Amino acid sequence: MTLSARNKLAGTVKSVVLGTVMAEVVIDIGGHEIVSAITRRAAEDLAIEAGDEVTAVIKATEVLIDK
Amino acid sequence: MTLSARNKLAGTVKSVVLGTVMAEVVIDIGGHEIVSAITRRAAEDLAIEAGDEVTAVIKATEVLIDK
Amino acid sequence: MTLSARNKLAGTVKSVVLGTVMAEVVIDIGGHEIVSAITRRAAEDLAIEAGDEVTAVIKATEVLIDK
Amino acid sequence: MTLSARNKLAGTVKSVVLGTVMAEVVIDIGGHEIVSAITRRAAEDLAIEAGDEVTAVIKATEVLIDK
Amino acid sequence: MTLSARNKLAGTVKSVVLGTVMAEVVIDIGGHEIVSAITRRAAEDLAIEAGDEVTAVIKATEVLIDK
Amino acid sequence: MTLSARNKLAGTVKSVVLGTVMAEVVIDIGGHEIVSAITRRAAEDLAIEAGDEVTAVIKATEVLIDK
Repeated sequence: MTLSARNKLAGTVKSVVLGTVMAEVVIDIGGHEIVSAITRRAAEDLAIEAGDEVTAVIKATEVLIDK
Repeated sequence: MTLSARNKLAGTVKSVVLGTVMAEVVIDIGGHEIVSAITRRAAEDLAIEAGDEVTAVIKATEVLIDK
Repeated sequence: MTLSARNKLAGTVKSVVLGTVMAEVVIDIGGHEIVSAITRRAAEDLAIEAGDEVTAVIKATEVLIDK
Repeated sequence: MTLSARNKLAGTVKSVVLGTVMAEVVIDIGGHEIVSAITRRAAEDLAIEAGDEVTAVIKATEVLIDK
Repeated sequence: MTLSARNKLAGTVKSVVLGTVMAEVVIDIGGHEIVSAITRRAAEDLAIEAGDEVTAVIKATEVLIDK
Repeated sequence: MTLSARNKLAGTVKSVVLGTVMAEVVIDIGGHEIVSAITRRAAEDLAIEAGDEVTAVIKATEVLIDK
């Protein structure tokens, strides 16, 4: 299976914070930090924890540009 | 001014394709390609063209995780 | 690999319209139509065409509720 | 009034979880589960609770495709 | 019916540009311009044209803050 | 620096609610309320509090239209 999302950045989970509904996952991408806010349910279903190898996936229409 | 968006990736514009309504901008971020789809109007107002130094900005709630 | 997005709806592509930058893909999900707007580049890289078995993927934070 | 969002899926609320800021609403759409993360304020203003007939609304630009 | 989206700004359509897949709609909201990019199909189904009274609808999770 | 996002609405912060992961910020824009849901981390990094002059920033692809 291949995903239409244009942006896929592989990295390592640095931290996971679980709220009641949402979860914050910080991913180290070659020295850059990427922050993702997903549902707590998603974080638990994927059992995401520090040290995991994951890929941050971002749809092209969600990327703003600052010049 | 500082933006709440958690993810800011600095890079260089590789290519710009202008459609009637939308524009596709490909940005080289340290060897990774980031693709952004913004309005043509935005691309023209910022006069985005290949070689520009820009920053890709992504809100944390827009980042999916693949594990 | 498993994706954090909570919503995955399997269906069959009914039509693809290619613009210069964007593409519209209509997917039949058990009798319901789901419309997706992705980049033309994504549609071409995945070679999406009518009849393809695909999955529509939607992050929970993108779902509004009308009551 | 008619909404521009292309995707409207009618269903029944199965569960609501309220956090401090966000709320998770699970909707049964003909046997499929759709998960929505909206603000707690929205869930309270609409008084969303299990058993409600609601419609999940999704903009076409928010739909990724997995092939 | 009431929509969960927290942000609803009433205004008047100033212009519509139709591309092959997408449409750009500019709305005057009490002197401010709001730009919306929706699918061409949505713009045509709603028969959106200059002079229409419409409401711009924005989910809270899509609003960034610049301070 | 200039941001590609087409919609920038200047206003004053009315309230901030901090959850574990997310924060809700209500902004008064000339008498209209705009609600933003950002990460708690973002709200803290920007030290957003009632009375602050801020700008709500919204990408054109995130604006739905109700007619």
